[in-house]
Amino acid sequence: MSEKVVIALDAMGGDYAPAETVKGAVEAVHDYPEIKVILVGKEELIKEQLSRYSYREDAIDIVNAPEVIDMGDVPTKAIREKKDSSLVVAMRLVKEGNADAVVSAGSTGAILVGGQLIVGRIKGIKRPALAPFLPSKKGFSLLIDCGANVDARPEHLLQFAQMGSVYFENVMGKKNPTVGIVNIGTEEEKGNQLVKETYPLLKECKDINFAGSVEAREIAGGSTDILVCEAFVGNVILKFFEGVAKTFLSCIKEGIMKSFRTKIGGVLIKPALKGLLGTFDVSSQGGAPLLGLNGLVVKAHGNSKSAEIKTALGQCIAFKENSINEKIKDMVQS
Amino acid sequence: MSEKVVIALDAMGGDYAPAETVKGAVEAVHDYPEIKVILVGKEELIKEQLSRYSYREDAIDIVNAPEVIDMGDVPTKAIREKKDSSLVVAMRLVKEGNADAVVSAGSTGAILVGGQLIVGRIKGIKRPALAPFLPSKKGFSLLIDCGANVDARPEHLLQFAQMGSVYFENVMGKKNPTVGIVNIGTEEEKGNQLVKETYPLLKECKDINFAGSVEAREIAGGSTDILVCEAFVGNVILKFFEGVAKTFLSCIKEGIMKSFRTKIGGVLIKPALKGLLGTFDVSSQGGAPLLGLNGLVVKAHGNSKSAEIKTALGQCIAFKENSINEKIKDMVQS
Repeated sequence: MSEKVVIALDAMGGDYAPAETVKGAVEAVHDYPEIKVILVGKEELIKEQLSRYSYREDAIDIVNAPEVIDMGDVPTKAIREKKDSSLVVAMRLVKEGNADAVVSAGSTGAILVGGQLIVGRIKGIKRPALAPFLPSKKGFSLLIDCGANVDARPEHLLQFAQMGSVYFENVMGKKNPTVGIVNIGTEEEKGNQLVKETYPLLKECKDINFAGSVEAREIAGGSTDILVCEAFVGNVILKFFEGVAKTFLSCIKEGIMKSFRTKIGGVLIKPALKGLLGTFDVSSQGGAPLLGLNGLVVKAHGNSKSAEIKTALGQCIAFKENSINEKIKDMVQS
Repeated sequence: MSEKVVIALDAMGGDYAPAETVKGAVEAVHDYPEIKVILVGKEELIKEQLSRYSYREDAIDIVNAPEVIDMGDVPTKAIREKKDSSLVVAMRLVKEGNADAVVSAGSTGAILVGGQLIVGRIKGIKRPALAPFLPSKKGFSLLIDCGANVDARPEHLLQFAQMGSVYFENVMGKKNPTVGIVNIGTEEEKGNQLVKETYPLLKECKDINFAGSVEAREIAGGSTDILVCEAFVGNVILKFFEGVAKTFLSCIKEGIMKSFRTKIGGVLIKPALKGLLGTFDVSSQGGAPLLGLNGLVVKAHGNSKSAEIKTALGQCIAFKENSINEKIKDMVQS
């Protein structure tokens, strides 16, 4: 068991918790023999859900946590006061060395605050960063930072580029992934104050493969492997993308439902549309890691069903097996 | 003639100039009897293009301008040194009272610099703002600012909200249009420093119908009439949207071309897809006004064909007839 990847799953976090979180855990331990999941939350509810499935009993544990952090809670207050909440208890398991990772589909704000206050930053890391994969026509770009710590400084963005490179290289298996900085033009003199001050730092940094500025219009078609930006901009890009994808697909569906003729057409092109839907589904990527902490914290999408929870749990394997945190430590402390 | 809306068109600006700019002017004077277009650029080339069409000769003038500002030119340098360029000459026509408006599909940077240096700011306006209409499922939102003057201060954003409201109300004919500020959450305490400082200014402003924060995920589905943001963020939203729309449509087309079956399906749903294409085509909106100047400056999309040039020229009518600039003046100077 000592060699297993132990993951504390916030069983109460997310729109479909605990039904889908528990189901996701069962599916994950079935598909990934190398993991062990600790379900953290209201024991009775978890047991009730678990009783529906058969699974390897040594692969799933339960840790009771009677409180729940709601989406409406103020993050700092919730983390400090709800000591027996599923999220706080799950994070303490990592802090105390009883788990390698935490996965939660709960409040992003609480996860970010809890990650910093409970799990804690790696020494030398100035600010942790939330880094989801953003789908593009050619694959994925790691968008770092999409968190809640806005108004970053250039030295933060430099560390985001370094951490993002380590993560991308080890998780996607691509040597020397390219790094771009999100900008409003591709010329070196373009940008706001932050981008202009960050640009030379990225250019001089020997740890990364810097490819210059990336204009927002290039992102969906496929740009650099890592897209560095300040959290306000990253958050806008991520959420705008979700909204546009959702709106486009609903417009297509409405168009198809208009008449008998278009319905037939819709059936014929369904496989093609499904591919599109899959490619640009942000939630299909499982979860976004919060990089820079003493342990792995993964934020899964709030509307995650069991499949996304399973993917998020699976992500933790590569993180541990490739010693990503040790590599981040080596980089920032060297 | 004195009552006509006189528009100086930068005949040399844009990817398809002068062929499509001249064609757009011919189409515009045909459709809009109330305008007169002054084609500014290389006289020989303009005459050559004009000779292909028949049009009311008193509705189109030519003013020779032998120089052209290229996309590669540094904006400030180009505006200062290329005194005989089509853009500079067109802007001088407005400055000197010989035209009401300038329309150009040329370099955005040069248009922004020229607008400020040649046409000049309205007294009391701290910073002009580029304000394109962004398509949504429900209609359009005016996204202000998308220009090149980044790192705005709260008092700039307040003026953007005021100018945007005047423009939207008069051009779209909607009383008390709603104003939102682009943010990373809808709670009042959310945001970066700029948004947090701007929020109370917007809330207290009696000239506008403030509706609070708008999260980026709501934009495509339809949010507030006016979306206020700093230019870096606005530029990212606008360009990201263009890129996503283009990528989605190319993916759908590729999906449809995959097999005989999907091709048939494609033919059947073509009308539905065309509607989608039209709804989310940023360039169909003609041009974005640069608000806050002593005269109207409209930036048309770089890849404008004659239809977009015509739309951009037509936009100038409402601007003059509704005395939008006078209303902006009244608001900021009161």
